[in-house]
Amino acid sequence: MRLRLTPRDTTFFDMLATLAQHNVTGASLLAELLGAPRSERDAIVHKLSEAEHVADDATHSIMRRLNQTFVTPFDRNDIYGLASALDDCMDAMEEAGDLIVLYKVDQLPLRVSEQVQVLQRCAELTAEAMPRLRSMDQLADYWVEINRLENQGDKLHRKLIAQMFDDTTDPVLLMKLKEIVDMLEEAADAFERVANMVEAIALKES
Amino acid sequence: MRLRLTPRDTTFFDMLATLAQHNVTGASLLAELLGAPRSERDAIVHKLSEAEHVADDATHSIMRRLNQTFVTPFDRNDIYGLASALDDCMDAMEEAGDLIVLYKVDQLPLRVSEQVQVLQRCAELTAEAMPRLRSMDQLADYWVEINRLENQGDKLHRKLIAQMFDDTTDPVLLMKLKEIVDMLEEAADAFERVANMVEAIALKES
Amino acid sequence: MRLRLTPRDTTFFDMLATLAQHNVTGASLLAELLGAPRSERDAIVHKLSEAEHVADDATHSIMRRLNQTFVTPFDRNDIYGLASALDDCMDAMEEAGDLIVLYKVDQLPLRVSEQVQVLQRCAELTAEAMPRLRSMDQLADYWVEINRLENQGDKLHRKLIAQMFDDTTDPVLLMKLKEIVDMLEEAADAFERVANMVEAIALKES
Repeated sequence: MRLRLTPRDTTFFDMLATLAQHNVTGASLLAELLGAPRSERDAIVHKLSEAEHVADDATHSIMRRLNQTFVTPFDRNDIYGLASALDDCMDAMEEAGDLIVLYKVDQLPLRVSEQVQVLQRCAELTAEAMPRLRSMDQLADYWVEINRLENQGDKLHRKLIAQMFDDTTDPVLLMKLKEIVDMLEEAADAFERVANMVEAIALKES
Repeated sequence: MRLRLTPRDTTFFDMLATLAQHNVTGASLLAELLGAPRSERDAIVHKLSEAEHVADDATHSIMRRLNQTFVTPFDRNDIYGLASALDDCMDAMEEAGDLIVLYKVDQLPLRVSEQVQVLQRCAELTAEAMPRLRSMDQLADYWVEINRLENQGDKLHRKLIAQMFDDTTDPVLLMKLKEIVDMLEEAADAFERVANMVEAIALKES
Repeated sequence: MRLRLTPRDTTFFDMLATLAQHNVTGASLLAELLGAPRSERDAIVHKLSEAEHVADDATHSIMRRLNQTFVTPFDRNDIYGLASALDDCMDAMEEAGDLIVLYKVDQLPLRVSEQVQVLQRCAELTAEAMPRLRSMDQLADYWVEINRLENQGDKLHRKLIAQMFDDTTDPVLLMKLKEIVDMLEEAADAFERVANMVEAIALKES
């Protein structure tokens, strides 16, 4: 338990907001990748990979600052956890993009773009919510909506896999597609973990 | 660190016990699904999905009450974690049931029913243990037995997959079966996580 | 918050170091397994499974001691978490070894041995770092290097899968290989989780 004798360092809110903003970039690049002709995919995945490195650096800056700061705006383990969880979203999105190119998949099922739309919405809502951690205000709307989106994404994901099992006769292609689609679902789960963490922090701090 | 000036709210024990009881219902419905003719499966999965919604509501009631309660019987993060972990068990069981219908799997390997028996036993033991959180008494028996069951389930799961690789020649069917069997193993893991969490809480509070 | 009126029990450092040492044994046995003729595999996997049991016992000894000790060298939940995370590394390595035998895989892709080399290096670095928890000294080198290794392992893993998709025409063999290779990647992730946990502990205690 740390005494609050000095003003709290509020830079962490800005740093978390910046990190969350990288996820918005990542989700947009994924959407761009889906619509791109095969010749442009490498370049987009390269940008996605760069965005992932930038997010990694942003995460480590938060860790380093935590290390140097005596008084944090809320529990330092929670800041640590939140930064890691935001970084997990980017990692999953980058891996999904990378697999599309690595596996040389020509055509993704149409509804994969719906999955990516869910991710874009999750990323935007999360980036909008981070600055509100400062006041712990109006955060419930955010985590309720993310949970709703994740539920919707989960249903979509199951139906998409079932449909792929019906439509795709080549088992190797099926394995490739399934792994990409599963990784996109993992990204949605990661956004949900961020929201659950924010909910737990709000519970504790309120 | 909260001072205990007022009597602690013990309703949480009842709420966790109720939530754990929903998992008993879920595991029974899964067992029923395995034995049912294909024509009755939809109805059983519908019931399972309803049970999952009820468990979701029970989980959120716990979260809301945590939000309104100043003095909790043990660390509020632990109550939060326990409720989430109990809900994870139900989610995995519901997903396994849903996949059986979605993937239109006619015949599951016989030993899948052994996996579901392990889940039923885990669910019962967990539901019996929750009220004992009140006194932190005789909980070691519970977590030791769950760990034993999960180990047994894990061995069963590996052998089942190996046997499926030997017996099933259709790779697409194999992928479907593997995902269902893996999801049942995930449910067993979720029950183990609940038990590990109870062990950690007992360590802290003792 | 526990007052430090009595000398802290420093046995925990030795116990965590012993547990980490079992992972070095596990990783060596995995490396031995890859190079062994099929007739010797059962015996090596048997040794690996015994090493896993010994690690399990070591983990539970830590839990029991935590239960009996009033003053711990750092937060008891963190000791608990660290012991569990070290045990997870062993579990994943043992499962990978077991699957190689259970699935009767004759020939693994050559680069699997690179994955196992990464695991051996992770296990060694982790075992060397555990005693340094006593002074919380020079730990940053350890977690930075583990993160680098895990990144390298992750890239290797993705390329290995992509290559398997290109080279292996039998989908059932592909499923078997993929599961083994994924389990090795899971072991690397488990070592990274240990390192992240050490980083978080160092942040808190510094």
